[in-house]
Amino acid sequence: MSPIAEVRVTPILISDPPLLNLQGVHQPYTPRTIVEVITEDGAVGLGETYGDLDYLRLAEAFAPKLTGSALTVNGLGPRVAACTRQVGAERIDNTVQAEGLRGSRTLAKIAAAVTSAFEVAIFDALGRELGVPVHALLGGKVRDAVEYSAYLFYRWAEHPEPDEPRDGWGAALDPAGVVAQAKRMADDYGFTSFKLKGGVFEPAQEVAAILALHDEFPEQPLRLDPNGAWSVETSLEVAARLDGVLEYLEDPTTGTANMAEVARKSALPLATNMCVTAFDEIPEAFRLDAVQVVLSDHHYWGGLRATQDLAAICRTYGVGLSMHSNTHLGISLAAMTQVASTVPSLDYACDTHRPWQTEDVITEPHTFSGGLVKVSDAPGLGVELDRDSLAALHQRWLDSDVRRRDDAAAMRRVDPAWTAPGFPRW
Amino acid sequence: MSPIAEVRVTPILISDPPLLNLQGVHQPYTPRTIVEVITEDGAVGLGETYGDLDYLRLAEAFAPKLTGSALTVNGLGPRVAACTRQVGAERIDNTVQAEGLRGSRTLAKIAAAVTSAFEVAIFDALGRELGVPVHALLGGKVRDAVEYSAYLFYRWAEHPEPDEPRDGWGAALDPAGVVAQAKRMADDYGFTSFKLKGGVFEPAQEVAAILALHDEFPEQPLRLDPNGAWSVETSLEVAARLDGVLEYLEDPTTGTANMAEVARKSALPLATNMCVTAFDEIPEAFRLDAVQVVLSDHHYWGGLRATQDLAAICRTYGVGLSMHSNTHLGISLAAMTQVASTVPSLDYACDTHRPWQTEDVITEPHTFSGGLVKVSDAPGLGVELDRDSLAALHQRWLDSDVRRRDDAAAMRRVDPAWTAPGFPRW
Repeated sequence: MSPIAEVRVTPILISDPPLLNLQGVHQPYTPRTIVEVITEDGAVGLGETYGDLDYLRLAEAFAPKLTGSALTVNGLGPRVAACTRQVGAERIDNTVQAEGLRGSRTLAKIAAAVTSAFEVAIFDALGRELGVPVHALLGGKVRDAVEYSAYLFYRWAEHPEPDEPRDGWGAALDPAGVVAQAKRMADDYGFTSFKLKGGVFEPAQEVAAILALHDEFPEQPLRLDPNGAWSVETSLEVAARLDGVLEYLEDPTTGTANMAEVARKSALPLATNMCVTAFDEIPEAFRLDAVQVVLSDHHYWGGLRATQDLAAICRTYGVGLSMHSNTHLGISLAAMTQVASTVPSLDYACDTHRPWQTEDVITEPHTFSGGLVKVSDAPGLGVELDRDSLAALHQRWLDSDVRRRDDAAAMRRVDPAWTAPGFPRW
Repeated sequence: MSPIAEVRVTPILISDPPLLNLQGVHQPYTPRTIVEVITEDGAVGLGETYGDLDYLRLAEAFAPKLTGSALTVNGLGPRVAACTRQVGAERIDNTVQAEGLRGSRTLAKIAAAVTSAFEVAIFDALGRELGVPVHALLGGKVRDAVEYSAYLFYRWAEHPEPDEPRDGWGAALDPAGVVAQAKRMADDYGFTSFKLKGGVFEPAQEVAAILALHDEFPEQPLRLDPNGAWSVETSLEVAARLDGVLEYLEDPTTGTANMAEVARKSALPLATNMCVTAFDEIPEAFRLDAVQVVLSDHHYWGGLRATQDLAAICRTYGVGLSMHSNTHLGISLAAMTQVASTVPSLDYACDTHRPWQTEDVITEPHTFSGGLVKVSDAPGLGVELDRDSLAALHQRWLDSDVRRRDDAAAMRRVDPAWTAPGFPRW
């Protein structure tokens, strides 16, 4: 175990398909931040997190403070949080709309997401130095493969401008389109559970899409996530329609009180990656039994150890645990898979956006087989940085003025009157 | 990382001074169980836990099941618990009175204590194989030394029989005796905080002892632990007398409801190692705000990772964290020190019985300096087994019929009419 000699933070832009959500549509390019922690003995650990400018600024400010540190993750969060204060709250832009998808937005949450990239990179470097996989540093894997869920989106076939990235998935704007997408997801990757990103169309159409999926895949777990788009009343109507069909209903409405009311009046388990996304939001939500499943996400919660902490809390309080995903590349998928392999109580298939990404920064992107990603036993995360790809995607960032994800702005390119709707939309 | 080739479980008897508590008095000899996990590459990992026959039986039953396993601690608890069912509940003796000091006694708690010994031994073996300290496998130390508290006991000078082990501490049966003991603890080990095991004399004398300690050490943290001996009314009277004097009052009364009532009516923080000693006891106790400080104990909670899980829950719920001790040797002290070094929120000096022990099974017993134990950076736990000592203490176990700790039986040798008092005693 040698100390940290150098830390590199590299902003990149990756292409992203026109996936629709409550806020608008994914931009053609979205930012990510890639972290490299290099030890004195030359091990390179990798981490990946959000690339929006406020996250990037904090990562850049914190990076030099790690030089000379041991490969220690305990206490990392407070060190990053202290740096947040140093960077200055006034430099943190609180207007990023895409973040509305994640519930309330605080400096502490930004700090946690930045912490996660450094924590994962430290684990990766430590694993490489010791010659063991990250899961061995997390107490050992309890499964050899991690199950993921197909993440279905309403989407356009193409972005509006001809020179923007395209893929071959085609449009999905009605139940038939969603089912076709799901069938391809099942065929190409073997997924056997399906999540639909909702909040795009009026609830009746999204209910119809779920029922169409249920017709096509009657035995397979289904989830619907409208990102809090609905009122309590609408949520209860949808829950009544989909009771017995959905595995869980994710964030039908916003806020712990509203979620608690829906939970009280519905038999359908409610999941969340909006009303409980940080430790300080847990006690009230659990006291009110507002959520029955928490979606972990090592970026949200501050790292892999924090994910295990969350798992311990959920287990103690009898709350289920699943895993959330935002747009990510292979470094994060490796980290998600490593930590998921160590948590016995992770009983649901994890979310992943990865099939939607056509680019990566690792030399051998993961494959999904039977919906599963094999848990790597290679040292560290088990992935290698593709430096050519990193350089190209960083050059794209340098050449672009896209500095954050803003799904509402992307929608305004097609619908100039668009503003992200207030809550509840329906 | 090679698989586990062999696991050894060795019962020993160690000498113990005549320390008094609610149940009676420590026996001249008390059992412990020593676990060795040997890997195919020859690394030997050490663990230590309770030696009472029910723990020993379970450890012996589980040990062979580890052969061939990876050095993985996740999922270990359920494997041991399954073995408990296999050993059969009818073989677990539920009458051991000393266990009354730890709150309700369940098979799950026995399994957790047995799990802890294997978990620590696996961490030790893994650390030795990788050449890193256990703390590095727990996310890294956040401090270089761990503070311990002097554990003061009312005690006799000697056990009743002349051939029984003796030490030079002399009796402590009144406030002056307690203060003299505390001064020696401070002189010999540098302790700067003090805990008195109470529940031995009527509350007024124990209050007087604390006040005498406060006169002698006016700036130093003091704790009193009557092991639930008091009614709610008595607890409130003592709490009123000692408000502003004690750092915390430990288990003044039994049961979550009683503790909650005392907590509601008193400003003094309440600590516990009786009403919350397993994860399933947390939700109700925290909901009722029954305890303000939980005493962790890796033996109780199922290991070092479980201790970190407990820390995460306490941090999330705004409950303080300290550390409990039962009679233990250097393997457990090493484990306590390693895990304590990794928990940023462990804000109190930890308990330890170790200064009372005159024997050990490690070649270089720890030293306390300024009340601190230095955190070892040597591979694993940083201690080596003294095989001669282990053999001698095991021979003592073979030659003896002492198979469990029974403080009430020990007291009956002096007071034939003694029975462990019911709750509350006062």
